[in-house]
Amino acid sequence: MIIIMNRPTDRQIERIMAKLAQKGIETYQLKSGGKTIIAVTDHTAVEHAELFERMPGVEKVVAVSKPFKLASREFRREDTQVAVKNVIFGAKEIPVIAGPCAVESYEQLHQTAIAVKQAGARMLRGGAYKPRTSPYSFQGLEKEGLEILQAVGRETGLPVITEVTDTRAVELVADYADMLQIGARNMQNFALLKEVAQIKKPVLLKRGVSATVEEWLMAAEYIMVGGNEAVVLCERGIRSFETYTRNTLDLSVVPLIKHLSHFPIIVDPSHGTGKWRLVGPMAKAAVAAGADGLLIEVHPWPEDALSDGPQSLTPANFNQLMQELADIAQAVGRNI
Amino acid sequence: MIIIMNRPTDRQIERIMAKLAQKGIETYQLKSGGKTIIAVTDHTAVEHAELFERMPGVEKVVAVSKPFKLASREFRREDTQVAVKNVIFGAKEIPVIAGPCAVESYEQLHQTAIAVKQAGARMLRGGAYKPRTSPYSFQGLEKEGLEILQAVGRETGLPVITEVTDTRAVELVADYADMLQIGARNMQNFALLKEVAQIKKPVLLKRGVSATVEEWLMAAEYIMVGGNEAVVLCERGIRSFETYTRNTLDLSVVPLIKHLSHFPIIVDPSHGTGKWRLVGPMAKAAVAAGADGLLIEVHPWPEDALSDGPQSLTPANFNQLMQELADIAQAVGRNI
Amino acid sequence: MIIIMNRPTDRQIERIMAKLAQKGIETYQLKSGGKTIIAVTDHTAVEHAELFERMPGVEKVVAVSKPFKLASREFRREDTQVAVKNVIFGAKEIPVIAGPCAVESYEQLHQTAIAVKQAGARMLRGGAYKPRTSPYSFQGLEKEGLEILQAVGRETGLPVITEVTDTRAVELVADYADMLQIGARNMQNFALLKEVAQIKKPVLLKRGVSATVEEWLMAAEYIMVGGNEAVVLCERGIRSFETYTRNTLDLSVVPLIKHLSHFPIIVDPSHGTGKWRLVGPMAKAAVAAGADGLLIEVHPWPEDALSDGPQSLTPANFNQLMQELADIAQAVGRNI
Amino acid sequence: MIIIMNRPTDRQIERIMAKLAQKGIETYQLKSGGKTIIAVTDHTAVEHAELFERMPGVEKVVAVSKPFKLASREFRREDTQVAVKNVIFGAKEIPVIAGPCAVESYEQLHQTAIAVKQAGARMLRGGAYKPRTSPYSFQGLEKEGLEILQAVGRETGLPVITEVTDTRAVELVADYADMLQIGARNMQNFALLKEVAQIKKPVLLKRGVSATVEEWLMAAEYIMVGGNEAVVLCERGIRSFETYTRNTLDLSVVPLIKHLSHFPIIVDPSHGTGKWRLVGPMAKAAVAAGADGLLIEVHPWPEDALSDGPQSLTPANFNQLMQELADIAQAVGRNI
Repeated sequence: MIIIMNRPTDRQIERIMAKLAQKGIETYQLKSGGKTIIAVTDHTAVEHAELFERMPGVEKVVAVSKPFKLASREFRREDTQVAVKNVIFGAKEIPVIAGPCAVESYEQLHQTAIAVKQAGARMLRGGAYKPRTSPYSFQGLEKEGLEILQAVGRETGLPVITEVTDTRAVELVADYADMLQIGARNMQNFALLKEVAQIKKPVLLKRGVSATVEEWLMAAEYIMVGGNEAVVLCERGIRSFETYTRNTLDLSVVPLIKHLSHFPIIVDPSHGTGKWRLVGPMAKAAVAAGADGLLIEVHPWPEDALSDGPQSLTPANFNQLMQELADIAQAVGRNI
Repeated sequence: MIIIMNRPTDRQIERIMAKLAQKGIETYQLKSGGKTIIAVTDHTAVEHAELFERMPGVEKVVAVSKPFKLASREFRREDTQVAVKNVIFGAKEIPVIAGPCAVESYEQLHQTAIAVKQAGARMLRGGAYKPRTSPYSFQGLEKEGLEILQAVGRETGLPVITEVTDTRAVELVADYADMLQIGARNMQNFALLKEVAQIKKPVLLKRGVSATVEEWLMAAEYIMVGGNEAVVLCERGIRSFETYTRNTLDLSVVPLIKHLSHFPIIVDPSHGTGKWRLVGPMAKAAVAAGADGLLIEVHPWPEDALSDGPQSLTPANFNQLMQELADIAQAVGRNI
Repeated sequence: MIIIMNRPTDRQIERIMAKLAQKGIETYQLKSGGKTIIAVTDHTAVEHAELFERMPGVEKVVAVSKPFKLASREFRREDTQVAVKNVIFGAKEIPVIAGPCAVESYEQLHQTAIAVKQAGARMLRGGAYKPRTSPYSFQGLEKEGLEILQAVGRETGLPVITEVTDTRAVELVADYADMLQIGARNMQNFALLKEVAQIKKPVLLKRGVSATVEEWLMAAEYIMVGGNEAVVLCERGIRSFETYTRNTLDLSVVPLIKHLSHFPIIVDPSHGTGKWRLVGPMAKAAVAAGADGLLIEVHPWPEDALSDGPQSLTPANFNQLMQELADIAQAVGRNI
Repeated sequence: MIIIMNRPTDRQIERIMAKLAQKGIETYQLKSGGKTIIAVTDHTAVEHAELFERMPGVEKVVAVSKPFKLASREFRREDTQVAVKNVIFGAKEIPVIAGPCAVESYEQLHQTAIAVKQAGARMLRGGAYKPRTSPYSFQGLEKEGLEILQAVGRETGLPVITEVTDTRAVELVADYADMLQIGARNMQNFALLKEVAQIKKPVLLKRGVSATVEEWLMAAEYIMVGGNEAVVLCERGIRSFETYTRNTLDLSVVPLIKHLSHFPIIVDPSHGTGKWRLVGPMAKAAVAAGADGLLIEVHPWPEDALSDGPQSLTPANFNQLMQELADIAQAVGRNI
């Protein structure tokens, strides 16, 4: 931490130094051109940074260390690999998770699962608890949805992932799913993060719609600190001023996360764009940028979907896309 | 709902019409300049809008009705008044809620409460469960914080408000607090909204950091549909590209909410700016814009605060501000 | 400037030090916890900051000094007052500039000018060169508009302001107008800034729709460095994700600019909201926040306006608003 | 255009109809559930939309037609190809434009040009007039920069592109450059757009930092309406809340522009990320998404660059990237 003071009085400097001394933090001081710069060596100091901002004479406090520790590349040099049964995220092969936004019926999910498996998907997704902007929209089949998901997963041999939205449901969802999804709206639901930190299932942590990369990695830190290291990050679009697309898919976080952290990162081009026409090109772009996986919405009859129809691919669209993705993967030295 | 089709084939129009008929929705059709426009009378149609966006030939689907019903000004013409014990939000008097970001100790809260009451505050705030970006930051005193809050509230005669962040804690928090706060990060925590809808305590619903006005009113709709009509909205700043301020306080929502909805709306200039120097001017601006209340952070020793020190006023700052606010309130025909 | 290096090699440190020495910049070095921190005293160093970011071993470069000098409060402690004929910005009285978005005809402008003057406006606005998103929209009357503006200004005794959008037109516009407006779209049209810096007329510098406060003050710096100190800043709304309002009016910049700079700042609630219903409340809020003036669109027949009808007040609306503003101004110790 | 009225009086409807009739616009009317919907057939009606928004009883005005005409895919079904000497944008081959941000000296540009040509670049970039946030930053070599650029272009046989920032300089720049760049800050400098519309050189139109896709295409419409059809669009990152990257590169516009328009679109990952480490991955992603070209900053000694050093590749980085790009291009059926 560096504390920059602008033309401070001696008394103001003394108060800062006393407070630092009281916390047992070692400091270095430097005066130049009206500014007094106090550098602090303690790595935990970042948590105290805001205290100093309010003190008289202080102009700015700058963090030197990054606020995430366990999630950082410095903490672990090699890439973390996360296994969901036989599917590995963070390895040479790029797994594709596919399925409908919401589980609507056994028939719908089963038909989708057969189709996406045939096309090369390695995991099945399907929401049982749906966070919806409107209380009048379909909220998911809840427990029945979990049962369908588990059954279809077993029949097809595809590991399954579904979203958990309530601390009280974590145990239940973990009983049925092979991987738990924390949705964008819950990325900073810290009670929920602490709860999934304590189960023994891998977690897919979606980026909040207006979360900075730092806040996202801090959310991952919550899970890791709580005891669960099996975290996969998922970029799914951020909120910008543009309205043609539902969200703005920020693919630059793929190489950025790889630089800052050791966690695998996958991309959801379906929510990321909200338009099925854009899903294919952005899926290919994600793989070219280095993504460790994809999460793609597929619905057998998108125009009858109970949620997110406009962004779902048909099984035929998906099948074609998987072939195109194989070529891109190969071009970056990986496979799908 | 209006469905706009661009040079559709007869078959494409037929499919749309069939799907609408199947839902029992009456329609009107209009062709002009290559476009076919299908207008739909049913007010529940907005929930189905996304289904049609994916259908062949459809260019755009436009909602005619607003998605919020019970929260809308059309549903209730007169202003809703929300009572928290003897404090009324939405009346001529403008209540100010004051107190520290987090309850840190009995002494800290008690000293603050005495001071803010003397200065004219009508309610006391203090967080017991703190949502913090970092797992290493102070997370609140939890149950002990609730006990301190209740005790100090009783001693000073100030109704108390505190945040609830977990569905499992709603009942407990409701036992101690007179009003429950849903924080910005939980505005779309729908499980939590459904839970507070079922208690008999008023709710302060903060706007999410990247929530549109429509999403915010839909969150209020969740609470009202669930049976709790005692909702007060709170603007606390949105996320923009500007970094000098912690958030961008969007005061235009004050008159906008009054136009669209019947709920009272208050403003939190402390989180809204993140800088204590800006709190006073923005509090005055909020009252001038028509706000029904204020939520202001006050800490006896801001530079020792365990959270949000830089945005807290001292009791002396707060006292002066209250006098200035009285003049503004009078200028808009109200009082504080 | 502070250069933070992460576990640098000796060679990497040497290269940084050599480059600094070569620029004749004095440095201080500090090692702690794997980080090497190099602090630099030279105030011009901020211009070189980006050079160092690319050098091996460098993690981050932090500016200590603010990039604006002449525009800063440190450069000039007292408030700058800008006179446009007999109208002063930055004094106790708060001048209101009113008039139509675009000059459409002598009759339209004359009728507006008479009305707004009677209501208490001190200056007249009207666009002759209109920057319009669409090439098919009305682009302004150009020279004819300037002539009408000047004529009506002389007849009513109101100083006039109009926008200049092209370096080639600066001289011409300055011949007709008493104050030149740089619009939001041209805030970083540096060629234009350099040109208005050389004329002897005051400049109203609107904030760009996605400009940070720092970028805005740097634009003012361009004008001041070029020789023109008569700059008035104008907040007119920034671009956010919200779509109910045309822009998000960021009133927190009013106290923020007063803290960082010595220039007067006024507010344009018409463009800032895009909705006439919100103009009044936000104008009152701006005055309460400490604004030094207002810029308000008034049109005698808003529904026939050739541009920006939906955000224009009628003369009757404006007249009522001016009375309400007088009360707010008094409440903050000023007058209108 | 569709005008939606909420519980209008007969008089309010009459006034709307009268105003439409006066403009000779044919209408269709529809009443349902308290709403009156007036649909309008005239395609020029979009320009009048804002007039109706202010009229009593009107709730919302929805555009049916897109505001851009000549720039739209409907206007021209086939892809437009833009030739800059022997380099074609919009064909199977994907041209890469490379070079330094600013022309600093003959030696710097010559050395860069030789290197990028060898690596496979097809065009040379280099700024002579630099729009810089700070008046104290290097502003470009101006005319001398143009002369160096032209000379090096001739020697290496690479067509050259440079930015024009002032209407008065358009002719001069067009004398030296093979393609003119309109930078992000000038995307809505309409005077400049009108000027480049009248020259006979192709134009690279960068997206404004907070421009919607619609505003961007309207800027292209200005150039096309003015008589110049040789427009290439360039995505270079938008402004979001994220601060790790300089901008947020919005690659979804690549397939979106191809859907909405006929113009070629290229991507600038250097400005789009501001970090050289991210340039390679995002360049590959852009090609995978379907981009028709790339604009990449290369500097022989990035740490000595007078502008934008941190985002520049070295010639060695660039050479390696070009080889990787060739594989991606092949995977999407194209070549570099």
